[in-house]
Amino acid sequence: MENCIFCKIISGKIPSKVVYEDEEVFAFHDINPIAPVHILIIPRKHISTINDIGPEHRDLMGRLALVSKELARQHNIDERGYRLVINCGEEGGQEVQHLHAHLLGGRPLGGVASN
Amino acid sequence: MENCIFCKIISGKIPSKVVYEDEEVFAFHDINPIAPVHILIIPRKHISTINDIGPEHRDLMGRLALVSKELARQHNIDERGYRLVINCGEEGGQEVQHLHAHLLGGRPLGGVASN
Repeated sequence: MENCIFCKIISGKIPSKVVYEDEEVFAFHDINPIAPVHILIIPRKHISTINDIGPEHRDLMGRLALVSKELARQHNIDERGYRLVINCGEEGGQEVQHLHAHLLGGRPLGGVASN
Repeated sequence: MENCIFCKIISGKIPSKVVYEDEEVFAFHDINPIAPVHILIIPRKHISTINDIGPEHRDLMGRLALVSKELARQHNIDERGYRLVINCGEEGGQEVQHLHAHLLGGRPLGGVASN
């Protein structure tokens, strides 16, 4: 997608601190972290929101979860704990229209994550 | 798991407001909702945390995402937006040791969900 900031990050047109990549999944540090560990895990392929996934994305969504869990381990937050968040749409607080999971950790995150 | 509250909910030993079930996935309304829509989506099989998933759970995690997205549509929050959250461990705020995703919506949820 020509005007998608995350597609530009994947292609290297916009620099990022990459932490993981394979054929399907790409992950990088959020430029405005709200926790000591704040990584975004995204599909390489442009999918705007989680509303747009169908049965054909089952494997991809499973991969996102597995990569997220593995990145938590690599960043030493697996034992202390962490949070995975996928926001969708305006009321969900989705800021970039390319499906992404936030991996948050490195401090107590509180509550159930609605604020 | 004998002492797991979510396993007891799945088996019907503890009543719940079920919103979805199939062979792999079970979903019910959170008894302490923090948003107008607050549904928990869980695997039938006991898995304590997302730290415990491996490649053999790829399909299951994909299914959790697909069911969550479908429940958002059924509860009319897909267009307004919603949030999916998986908490892990103490700093992540995981309160029940049976892997679960929170589906939150029905009001503006703010921020990126770390409190």
